[in-house]
Amino acid sequence: MAVAELCLFPLGTESPSVGEYLKPVLKVIEDSGLKYQLCPMGTVVEGPVEEILELVKLCHEAILKAGAKRVVISLRIDDRTDKELTIEGKVRI
Amino acid sequence: MAVAELCLFPLGTESPSVGEYLKPVLKVIEDSGLKYQLCPMGTVVEGPVEEILELVKLCHEAILKAGAKRVVISLRIDDRTDKELTIEGKVRI
Amino acid sequence: MAVAELCLFPLGTESPSVGEYLKPVLKVIEDSGLKYQLCPMGTVVEGPVEEILELVKLCHEAILKAGAKRVVISLRIDDRTDKELTIEGKVRI
Amino acid sequence: MAVAELCLFPLGTESPSVGEYLKPVLKVIEDSGLKYQLCPMGTVVEGPVEEILELVKLCHEAILKAGAKRVVISLRIDDRTDKELTIEGKVRI
Repeated sequence: MAVAELCLFPLGTESPSVGEYLKPVLKVIEDSGLKYQLCPMGTVVEGPVEEILELVKLCHEAILKAGAKRVVISLRIDDRTDKELTIEGKVRI
Repeated sequence: MAVAELCLFPLGTESPSVGEYLKPVLKVIEDSGLKYQLCPMGTVVEGPVEEILELVKLCHEAILKAGAKRVVISLRIDDRTDKELTIEGKVRI
Repeated sequence: MAVAELCLFPLGTESPSVGEYLKPVLKVIEDSGLKYQLCPMGTVVEGPVEEILELVKLCHEAILKAGAKRVVISLRIDDRTDKELTIEGKVRI
Repeated sequence: MAVAELCLFPLGTESPSVGEYLKPVLKVIEDSGLKYQLCPMGTVVEGPVEEILELVKLCHEAILKAGAKRVVISLRIDDRTDKELTIEGKVRI
């Protein structure tokens, strides 16, 4: 399993509060079946890299559908082959 | 078209010089057919979000095949619906 | 207050397990007096932007002192002027 | 010398085109005296880590002064002690 952090920023939204654009994204993450944790600067997910990337695609579609005219998506994946990574195991710097 | 920056860091490589792990990744990017530009802090690619994510998957496979035991992949995508983004158009802050 | 996520990756460490390099960094964060939260993909801190940047400088020094020959530091700051951001308030996508 | 990539996204700007907020940021970077290169997904600067962090502080001030109500700042620094990093030397994956 890999662990990844995903963060989406809609640009050009009138208000600097962007929660309404992120609610449908969270719904997509919940529906994915992947283990996840909401963090202050993004959502952390655990799963195979292929499934994480598929989830990013669905989140991108969801935020555009929610009305975002422009979106910046930031993703950082940590994966290793010598042992399993998990959300719990990776609470660290 | 979206524009994205992709950066891969292999960890645990003995030497802090990691170019040997990145050459096969670059080969994958070249072979993708997507427009790209090598930058000092990563490689910038231009294309549909779906194809960019597919490319990330191939880069991940390539760096593990090159012997990386652990890899951190950083991806930032910029996409907008109101006009086309291009690598040339986005040389900015 | 701004909220920021900080993540340090030492490269060229022989082992893909890098916790020994990160312990002194965590000590620096604890000693900073800034409010912080350990997350799976990095440490989130809350404070004025100037103090967060000063903390990044100290973390950089600490990881080099811990023996890292190369380090990648990833920082993402979220700051707004219309209302206060806090770690608790920002648990979201 | 370290090499770093800096990217600022103003949120809540009504228009998804954010160039007007970034022009004063670019001016600050030019005035810093640090070597820099405009890239499609951010601006790359070369210099001591301490000076790069000082520059981030000035860019943050500049974008708020330009009217941004909220800003996300993304910074990635690459530093190594065994040899000098330069913008030219780092054009790679």
